[in-house]
Amino acid sequence: MQYRNATATVIGAGDYIGAAIAKKFAAEGFIVFAGRRNGDKLAPLVAEVEATGGRIFARSLDARKEDDITNFLQDADKQAPLEVCVFNIGANVNFPLVETTERVFRKVWEMACYSGFLTGREAARLMLPRGRGCIFFTGATASLRGGVGYAAFAAAKFGLRAVAQSAARELGPKNIHVAHLIIDGGVDTAWVRDRIREREGEDAVKNLDPTRLMRPAAVAEAYWQLYQQRPDAWTFEQEIRPFAEKW
Amino acid sequence: MQYRNATATVIGAGDYIGAAIAKKFAAEGFIVFAGRRNGDKLAPLVAEVEATGGRIFARSLDARKEDDITNFLQDADKQAPLEVCVFNIGANVNFPLVETTERVFRKVWEMACYSGFLTGREAARLMLPRGRGCIFFTGATASLRGGVGYAAFAAAKFGLRAVAQSAARELGPKNIHVAHLIIDGGVDTAWVRDRIREREGEDAVKNLDPTRLMRPAAVAEAYWQLYQQRPDAWTFEQEIRPFAEKW
Amino acid sequence: MQYRNATATVIGAGDYIGAAIAKKFAAEGFIVFAGRRNGDKLAPLVAEVEATGGRIFARSLDARKEDDITNFLQDADKQAPLEVCVFNIGANVNFPLVETTERVFRKVWEMACYSGFLTGREAARLMLPRGRGCIFFTGATASLRGGVGYAAFAAAKFGLRAVAQSAARELGPKNIHVAHLIIDGGVDTAWVRDRIREREGEDAVKNLDPTRLMRPAAVAEAYWQLYQQRPDAWTFEQEIRPFAEKW
Amino acid sequence: MQYRNATATVIGAGDYIGAAIAKKFAAEGFIVFAGRRNGDKLAPLVAEVEATGGRIFARSLDARKEDDITNFLQDADKQAPLEVCVFNIGANVNFPLVETTERVFRKVWEMACYSGFLTGREAARLMLPRGRGCIFFTGATASLRGGVGYAAFAAAKFGLRAVAQSAARELGPKNIHVAHLIIDGGVDTAWVRDRIREREGEDAVKNLDPTRLMRPAAVAEAYWQLYQQRPDAWTFEQEIRPFAEKW
Repeated sequence: MQYRNATATVIGAGDYIGAAIAKKFAAEGFIVFAGRRNGDKLAPLVAEVEATGGRIFARSLDARKEDDITNFLQDADKQAPLEVCVFNIGANVNFPLVETTERVFRKVWEMACYSGFLTGREAARLMLPRGRGCIFFTGATASLRGGVGYAAFAAAKFGLRAVAQSAARELGPKNIHVAHLIIDGGVDTAWVRDRIREREGEDAVKNLDPTRLMRPAAVAEAYWQLYQQRPDAWTFEQEIRPFAEKW
Repeated sequence: MQYRNATATVIGAGDYIGAAIAKKFAAEGFIVFAGRRNGDKLAPLVAEVEATGGRIFARSLDARKEDDITNFLQDADKQAPLEVCVFNIGANVNFPLVETTERVFRKVWEMACYSGFLTGREAARLMLPRGRGCIFFTGATASLRGGVGYAAFAAAKFGLRAVAQSAARELGPKNIHVAHLIIDGGVDTAWVRDRIREREGEDAVKNLDPTRLMRPAAVAEAYWQLYQQRPDAWTFEQEIRPFAEKW
Repeated sequence: MQYRNATATVIGAGDYIGAAIAKKFAAEGFIVFAGRRNGDKLAPLVAEVEATGGRIFARSLDARKEDDITNFLQDADKQAPLEVCVFNIGANVNFPLVETTERVFRKVWEMACYSGFLTGREAARLMLPRGRGCIFFTGATASLRGGVGYAAFAAAKFGLRAVAQSAARELGPKNIHVAHLIIDGGVDTAWVRDRIREREGEDAVKNLDPTRLMRPAAVAEAYWQLYQQRPDAWTFEQEIRPFAEKW
Repeated sequence: MQYRNATATVIGAGDYIGAAIAKKFAAEGFIVFAGRRNGDKLAPLVAEVEATGGRIFARSLDARKEDDITNFLQDADKQAPLEVCVFNIGANVNFPLVETTERVFRKVWEMACYSGFLTGREAARLMLPRGRGCIFFTGATASLRGGVGYAAFAAAKFGLRAVAQSAARELGPKNIHVAHLIIDGGVDTAWVRDRIREREGEDAVKNLDPTRLMRPAAVAEAYWQLYQQRPDAWTFEQEIRPFAEKW
């Protein structure tokens, strides 16, 4: 592994996509800063990265708190220049509109939109003086479509997409690459397998077609492709889905 | 004027669009409930509506407070069945991303998105048992585009659009018409004239082409057209702009 | 009926939507010019319009021929100034991609896109010197979505939408209102009832929910609303669908 | 170079993007089939590819002729299985709507849409029996926006996008990756430099910021990234633009 003097941060380093992104950038020589609500849960990721010679810092982080975001990114930047910042917090809930409490609506927004704004803004503050860096946001089908029962989740994801667009238009001319990756299909996670089990039964999960769900590593690969783009041909928005997905 | 046994509410009954909508529905025989932050400012609207035989109730209303929204709509519904509910609060601000405070980002969202969710949900609760009603949301260019400096405003407007979409898909089959009107161009308000004055000078305002800006009454007319649509051919989303507007 | 010194043309005056538009504008006092491939089939429409005091000219018209379009619109304009021009030719076909012949692909485009371009251009030529007029195009779900089996139809409808957008941006500032109405749901026609019969059986048609399909008159009403908009608040694009439609 | 037993075809192998794509896939070991109107102009490309050990066949090809497309792709497939098919014909013209002749409108469509349909269909016929392959289409800003003067060009590009969508939805579940790359910004070509010269003068070209225009190689790289995606995370649509581009 060839080490780089650069940091890649993952805010929302959950067990699947976030962890896969962290592993990919660590494997490419970045110092990785990984944050999630309960930092203790990052122990397996840290072990896995370090076992292969990667460098990773794991942190507890409440992304809804401005100071937590600020400190996390500034600490990362002190290790080595912050070159890549990935915001990957989801908050997928589904409730009929009339049963959506104000508490749920607000909390989902704080997790999936407000914290994304804080992340993008703080990353920009660190990257602008150096005139380089990448800020990537994870979107979902609900970033483009407010489906039945998704008032809270889609409102947050639409909002995050607006932040990403606004940031891209503002920061692009200053050589900071902002992108929004829309994951339009199921990722292979325990949560998604549970939903399939609920809807289609245990056998559907047992006999799951290996290509029906996206591997987290494939999502990480998409981010890596975005990172590799040169400034004369940047992508802002790109959706990925499994080949058999209906859309 | 032929009176109807039906209420039309306007949340965000500002001096321009909101007032025009209130006047239009009052003129069509509805009992109008108009709410805005400082209800005292509604006195001229009340006087104007009543002078022409219309019926209107004016209220102070902090749309960011769940109880205020709930009480406002329930009180309206007690006068006569709530048939039309218009959410018309904007919060247009523009700041560079790195200068957007968390307080601004949150407040703009509370005014322009969160309160819209509360409004839509409460209206739905009142309309669903009767299986009829219209819930209309006012959108803007920033509902579809996150421009430079609009991270906060566009995040809120994108989010409001998601709420409207989700509500439309959920409530449409229950015979409640949800629509989202995108105002893509300047409305003739003091604020817009001030922006033109800033950018183009006093003369630009003095000699303003009468067709460059939308009359508030034209926006109200668009809502009235949406109200008149029969359930076999409803519009969810529609944009309006002045004929000479660049888009 | 109050007669107007103005002509409204309908190119693609089929038995349903086109006829309904013709009837609506005739009922509002316009001289109507109605064209379709086989003009003889317009006899019932002519009889119906004239029975109620309306004025209508019926013509055979091959919209894929430049001269036919040109002559049709010029003749209309000679009766009275051309004020409204509606292009309403569809060509809904569905074939697997590999079974779509070049002949089908070309013919569908000629009917649904090329002829729309000719219509828009000729109408513009007649309207521009007077600085007023409306050019309206009928779109469909396939204007926005290339679904399975719709390569030919969607390519034509996407193309027509491009023509409409381009025309709107070019002609709007010259006070000509160009709009594109997206009919996103089934219209109550014999063809649609046949499709339902095929898929769901005879009983599905017999017991058809009256609100499942759009009445042609409701589509005509949407065009009438577009016509009534004043130049300070024009809509370019608007979709209509039945209240229970899934989207 | 590691040779592959696979063919990559480029229909519309012009001097810039098409040539760059051909070079990239040749450099990655594909047998390349390059076609353009005047095949003689491909001599420099052939020389360059062969000088580096690549394998390339150059052909004259009128993409508006069904037989030409069919023969071209079948011949390619005889060399080695057709694995990648890129459709890259543009036809960028700009005329006021009323000055757009029917001949221009038709020809632009034949070049940029009809031939794309023929290409996609024929490639699908060759790829479906093997259950693998990639079909990529080159889009432009005009694929999404009908701007002033672009009725002909946008109608063709919108139509091509519809073909691509329809093909993607139909062929994706059969393991054929269809993608549509939107080039939203100037590519560094003689034509684009001429446009800059016209609008901004000779000095603007002489002092051209090297990052203002996209290198053709960067576009080729984007196609290569699409090719590398695994079937559990395919992109259908993606836009690329230079970092300083306004959008």
